[in-house]
Amino acid sequence: MTATDLAVGPGALELRWADGTTSHYPYIWLRDNCPSGLHPDTMERLLDLMSIDPEPKPRAARLEEGAAVVEWAGEGHVSRFPLDWLQGHRPGRPVEDPADIAPELWRGGLGAEGIPRHRADDILAGDGALLAWMTDTARLGLSIVEGVAATPEATVALAERIGFLRRTNFGTTFEVVNRPDPNNLAYTAEHLPLHTDLPNQEVPPGYQFLHCIANEAEGGGSIFADGFAIAEDLRVEDPDAFALLSSVPIPFRFHDAETDIRVRRPVVTLDDGGRLAEIRYNAHIAAAFDMPADIMAGYYRAYRAYMERTRRQDYVVSLKLNAGEMVVFDNRRILHGRERFDPNTGYRHLHGCYVDRGEFASRLRVLARA
Amino acid sequence: MTATDLAVGPGALELRWADGTTSHYPYIWLRDNCPSGLHPDTMERLLDLMSIDPEPKPRAARLEEGAAVVEWAGEGHVSRFPLDWLQGHRPGRPVEDPADIAPELWRGGLGAEGIPRHRADDILAGDGALLAWMTDTARLGLSIVEGVAATPEATVALAERIGFLRRTNFGTTFEVVNRPDPNNLAYTAEHLPLHTDLPNQEVPPGYQFLHCIANEAEGGGSIFADGFAIAEDLRVEDPDAFALLSSVPIPFRFHDAETDIRVRRPVVTLDDGGRLAEIRYNAHIAAAFDMPADIMAGYYRAYRAYMERTRRQDYVVSLKLNAGEMVVFDNRRILHGRERFDPNTGYRHLHGCYVDRGEFASRLRVLARA
Repeated sequence: MTATDLAVGPGALELRWADGTTSHYPYIWLRDNCPSGLHPDTMERLLDLMSIDPEPKPRAARLEEGAAVVEWAGEGHVSRFPLDWLQGHRPGRPVEDPADIAPELWRGGLGAEGIPRHRADDILAGDGALLAWMTDTARLGLSIVEGVAATPEATVALAERIGFLRRTNFGTTFEVVNRPDPNNLAYTAEHLPLHTDLPNQEVPPGYQFLHCIANEAEGGGSIFADGFAIAEDLRVEDPDAFALLSSVPIPFRFHDAETDIRVRRPVVTLDDGGRLAEIRYNAHIAAAFDMPADIMAGYYRAYRAYMERTRRQDYVVSLKLNAGEMVVFDNRRILHGRERFDPNTGYRHLHGCYVDRGEFASRLRVLARA
Repeated sequence: MTATDLAVGPGALELRWADGTTSHYPYIWLRDNCPSGLHPDTMERLLDLMSIDPEPKPRAARLEEGAAVVEWAGEGHVSRFPLDWLQGHRPGRPVEDPADIAPELWRGGLGAEGIPRHRADDILAGDGALLAWMTDTARLGLSIVEGVAATPEATVALAERIGFLRRTNFGTTFEVVNRPDPNNLAYTAEHLPLHTDLPNQEVPPGYQFLHCIANEAEGGGSIFADGFAIAEDLRVEDPDAFALLSSVPIPFRFHDAETDIRVRRPVVTLDDGGRLAEIRYNAHIAAAFDMPADIMAGYYRAYRAYMERTRRQDYVVSLKLNAGEMVVFDNRRILHGRERFDPNTGYRHLHGCYVDRGEFASRLRVLARA
């Protein structure tokens, strides 16, 4: 969009755009962001803010072909701001972010058949398929990749198309098999109710990749629910419960011989705008609640209201993963679990890893450049 | 401490302790935390909260040797709670955490000679020395390790005494040397003003390890300041500036050919209790501010107030690292920087890595078990 008019206001440059809107650009902000102040190699800001007049004033300003040009009083410096850049950086509006994909909430009606499916070969071969897969995964929080070679390396190769792996106290990758001496319920054959992984970490792992290498035992189906959908329904149906869950921190803790990892955080984390940012829900590693006794009963009621919804079939999608399939989900939104299985009837082996939200978003932005 | 009396109150068990204080333990909380509900191997909670009465009542309760015993009405279950555990888990008081080491703020008067020094050999050889070093580092946010072998492996061996390394887009370890084609100011010979690393990450790296392998060039001294001390002084001396810096998010961004990593966060992050939790301060990767135009001038004034203090000698400690020394600091509290150096006068090479706060705190807790 082009600018039709420019005015030197008392504290800000005023630009009128072709659509009739006007934007105000405070002078100190313009001077601080003069393109001449960036390092030519690193594009980082080199200009020292303390070296310039804290209240810079233009001597003159004008529109030129595709740019607004400001001549600064005193120092005589001239700044040239591309109009495209000014339009993308209107104060009060965060810069557009290609990684901002609005979550599309789902409930049990999605069905296993509603989970988006993508092909491993395509994702490995082309950035278009990678972007399509990532976009679906970000939108629904959940996707399935088909045709994955039955090796641990194949899990990692797909995850690394997005970014490097998040290491945790369970390693950089992990094997979900029943073990004789488990330090975690996942490593048993027990029913594993819906939960998010590692809410006891300052930042729980972002996207989780669970690649099914073998699933021959009886039982062992996978279950999923959209933790955001449950929270949004609670916000409407039981606002008191939602208020407690999104404000009162509870302690989460995992400890074994080598580690003792704890945080205190609410079950529901909202962003500055009140939108859902994160769910931490894991009955197994929630430690003893530590809120004051007088709000304890109310908190339990709220917590049970969330938990009760995780058991309702109208929120849950079930499927039995086949060898060669990999399920991918946003571990800070989607609850996952597993039905009990009988280890005497066959082998069950999932290979897993995580890529954090930061790496995921970075890849989306880089792919959007193309 | 022993309990002297127990009463079955209307909604909570009331325990009177030997020091005369009384604690209230709501019944639902007691039933939920019955020790019989833990997995014998993993110590995770197996009891399903939905399977029990949401308003459990005791039929009877009594004090026994070192325990409070509750017989539940209806189901007839008996719970036995060790008094030590009840005392450590009084509702309204978060459990004591050996990793909670209060920051001791410092200013320029600390001097280079005031930075705690520890020996690499001792840290590698014994847990006592490891704990002493970590405690100093947590308290002041800054320490020096001496006698480190001049190899990249030695950096990692010391850091891994604490926990595994935090990987970032710059790798799992990084070399601070001037490069012909830098993607970051650190990789030039320029003056590098005080900053924290990677505030553009959702969670910036926790503890940073900078091991000096060679420092023969003229210049290239290291500078540090306690970002918490500057913030606390600002809270007193310029509360309006502090309020803006601790509430208004600003965008941070690093991007190169492979990555585009962004967040919007305030410069000062406070915890729920209003205590300082984190400083994000890096003029080079702060992107163009995006707050509304009408608060922009005020924000710049606040931001400059913080920046101006980072230039005052009364906040800064300077030293020139020698080969074989490693400086370690809390990157989410301590600002670090470097004086310009002349690459023609000699070789300068630092080898660096990070260990996150979560791993650091976990190690402190495990060491405290001994």
